[in-house]
Amino acid sequence: MTSDPQTDRIYTAGLLVIGDEILSGRTHDKNIAQVASWLQVQGIRLSEVRVVADVMERIVEAVNALRETYDYLFTTGGIGPTHDDITVDAVAEALGVPVIVHPEARAILERYYADKPGGLTEARLRMARVPEGSDLIPNRMSGAPGIKRGNIHLMAGVPHITAGMLDALTGTLEGGAPLKAETIGCWTAESEVADILREIEKAHENCQIGSYPFFREGRVGANFVVRSTDEAELAACVHALCDALSAAGYDFTPGGI
Amino acid sequence: MTSDPQTDRIYTAGLLVIGDEILSGRTHDKNIAQVASWLQVQGIRLSEVRVVADVMERIVEAVNALRETYDYLFTTGGIGPTHDDITVDAVAEALGVPVIVHPEARAILERYYADKPGGLTEARLRMARVPEGSDLIPNRMSGAPGIKRGNIHLMAGVPHITAGMLDALTGTLEGGAPLKAETIGCWTAESEVADILREIEKAHENCQIGSYPFFREGRVGANFVVRSTDEAELAACVHALCDALSAAGYDFTPGGI
Repeated sequence: MTSDPQTDRIYTAGLLVIGDEILSGRTHDKNIAQVASWLQVQGIRLSEVRVVADVMERIVEAVNALRETYDYLFTTGGIGPTHDDITVDAVAEALGVPVIVHPEARAILERYYADKPGGLTEARLRMARVPEGSDLIPNRMSGAPGIKRGNIHLMAGVPHITAGMLDALTGTLEGGAPLKAETIGCWTAESEVADILREIEKAHENCQIGSYPFFREGRVGANFVVRSTDEAELAACVHALCDALSAAGYDFTPGGI
Repeated sequence: MTSDPQTDRIYTAGLLVIGDEILSGRTHDKNIAQVASWLQVQGIRLSEVRVVADVMERIVEAVNALRETYDYLFTTGGIGPTHDDITVDAVAEALGVPVIVHPEARAILERYYADKPGGLTEARLRMARVPEGSDLIPNRMSGAPGIKRGNIHLMAGVPHITAGMLDALTGTLEGGAPLKAETIGCWTAESEVADILREIEKAHENCQIGSYPFFREGRVGANFVVRSTDEAELAACVHALCDALSAAGYDFTPGGI
């Protein structure tokens, strides 16, 4: 098995979800899972998520912590036209750069709102503001673009618009070998097989085993997810785990329950 | 209108969601919305959420940041019997206290597993470990208790078990006046009414107006959520917003769309 040092590098990302609506419990977040799944495919590991309110100081603090700790930072929310949309200002403050009107963003908005009631109002023009030095992320859905500056990617908060921006970024970011995963499900309490999981993980140093218990149809069970960037090591670990479960008399379901 | 200084104090909380399964996109988080809604009723404002992987250093860092910044810290996940359950160890490390076996937790587990296959194994006994100085949070669902130490509350990650622990905590935490909210929905782009929202919010200093755009049935719309701890001021702000929307020729739906 050859090992390419280039692909052995692990790329990491932080996600910052901005908006009172998630913290109030009013809206169930959909962007965490969406961004997480997308990053997996890009070979980038989502390592931390933060959700903060529309408060300048909190956004600035989180932007600086995450952009410095991880290879990439993605934000969702707060780039719309209303008074509570302050993500651009917060990122500019975090970076110590001014906010400018991006000429291409302005042109996009002019075209988009040309035939819409009210035209390009001052509020709508807010969506052309970017931290100086930014590029744009195309938005096929609703005109106003996302923003890319250095390792920071500012995206919309409405999930289907976020999805379009992720789509536009697909394949543009440097990533490592994607983390591969296989799941084995068991209709048994995870506490019964905890020793097996620990031993198998210990014996396969390039694999991690996660145990995710559930309660369904009145019964307890768990899915065991084996993860590795190396396909052969992953297969060996899954094989060893299945053997150990069989030997101990447990039924299991490849692919998970 | 009388103002009680006791109830004017704003109580805040941070939530730390621990587990690789959310970050991998495998599991859609349900605990953020659940904890957020529960806190609203307790008069405690959820101010920040962090999601971190099952990595000691990351959990310790987040525990210390959140417990020091907010009145309360809640964690979900990582208190089960398997090798990847390290929340108790991480919180003990963050606090600089040893991990001990809590005698009452041990007794609860002895009773719970007395008639279950395998009995109280070493792996299951892990669930009686707590940071020294902790109290227990009852768990009607599955035996193993949650843990309360100072302003930190460690809860299970499986949502229906988390729910049971929240239920056990109901009414036990000091909170302030609950934040009240009213929603007004509009089948219009938020960018059209951004100026109205800004002006109305400015004129009602104890109220915040959030604007939450959506795209449904092929049309754009937005819900405007007015929030205040003061019922009379909330009503006045909602009234003013409805008047302004009417005057500008917009239809709106009280209660939201």
